[in-house]
Amino acid sequence: MKVYLAKVSGNAYKLRILLSLLKVPHEVVWLDFANKEHKSAAYLKINPRGEVPALEDHGHMIWDSAACLVYVARQYGSEQWLPTDPLGLAEVMQWLALSATELQCGLQYARRLLVLGRRTLGTLEEGQNFGRLALDVVETHLKTHEWLALGRPTIAEPACFPYIETAPESQVALESYPAIIQWMQRCRQLPGWIDR
Amino acid sequence: MKVYLAKVSGNAYKLRILLSLLKVPHEVVWLDFANKEHKSAAYLKINPRGEVPALEDHGHMIWDSAACLVYVARQYGSEQWLPTDPLGLAEVMQWLALSATELQCGLQYARRLLVLGRRTLGTLEEGQNFGRLALDVVETHLKTHEWLALGRPTIAEPACFPYIETAPESQVALESYPAIIQWMQRCRQLPGWIDR
Repeated sequence: MKVYLAKVSGNAYKLRILLSLLKVPHEVVWLDFANKEHKSAAYLKINPRGEVPALEDHGHMIWDSAACLVYVARQYGSEQWLPTDPLGLAEVMQWLALSATELQCGLQYARRLLVLGRRTLGTLEEGQNFGRLALDVVETHLKTHEWLALGRPTIAEPACFPYIETAPESQVALESYPAIIQWMQRCRQLPGWIDR
Repeated sequence: MKVYLAKVSGNAYKLRILLSLLKVPHEVVWLDFANKEHKSAAYLKINPRGEVPALEDHGHMIWDSAACLVYVARQYGSEQWLPTDPLGLAEVMQWLALSATELQCGLQYARRLLVLGRRTLGTLEEGQNFGRLALDVVETHLKTHEWLALGRPTIAEPACFPYIETAPESQVALESYPAIIQWMQRCRQLPGWIDR
């Protein structure tokens, strides 16, 4: 498998975590974000959205972080990481959706504004507020659950972790989310979990 | 099955389309958006995110439009609407991700600004530009494909259709996307497809 990543990307980090958890052999193509390699004509043929991650496996291309997680979990993992029964799949899907909307478009775009000076959607305050909606939902859930879905680690963990971990870079402090902080520690203790 | 919907919501419309396509018997609870019933304490117990749709089936609750589509497709549909093989599931997932990010946070939030006067994230122009990224990806794909994923209708269609159809309400004209217009016509001809 060949994966297309960038060092600064939280979305790429999601896939890196899962590949490491599942010990999937892979070749990495590192894209140069600073030189906009992810918007080059050559890369847009791989991922028309111009984002990372994307992956190529057995001649098939997959773009989008959640789609990459789904593919790797189904192809190289067991039912543990992504079950296919209706309820199990939907429960994991809830958190993948939250990671794509409030966590990415809220927290991550607020962070991008501060760290890279690039504005995608909205002001810093709008991004923080939108992101806090997700943090509140996650915190409430984790007060009574060890993991996001199904009572065990699933791909919901690598999907949600990266842009929660970097919330302080969006000037959203995690101190008021103690259950999230404990969950992050549990994630880091999973065999094979890797740091950014 | 009981589903929680609101008449103005494109996310609710996604689920209504699939329920109609698959002829799934269900009871509807219509929420009063104007009176913020979706932010009431009672509803936040059903969906902590305070959005529609949500569904309840056999005592289980599912929130988020994509998660609801996944649940209904797996529970009441065949492999046609959402396959579980790694590549098929991931290919559908790509479009669910696009529908949650560029289409919702871009086109829909631009529309919300114009139609409801409520700003969630970003200016009108930012929402339009973010949404156009998705329209360009969809248009390019549909120039050489009849359907979004797998060469046949899947839940990618109800996931992406609603906020593409309402693009003109975001002041994004669809005239420059002829393949999308033809795809929308094919969607409307699917047996059981319903209008907004």
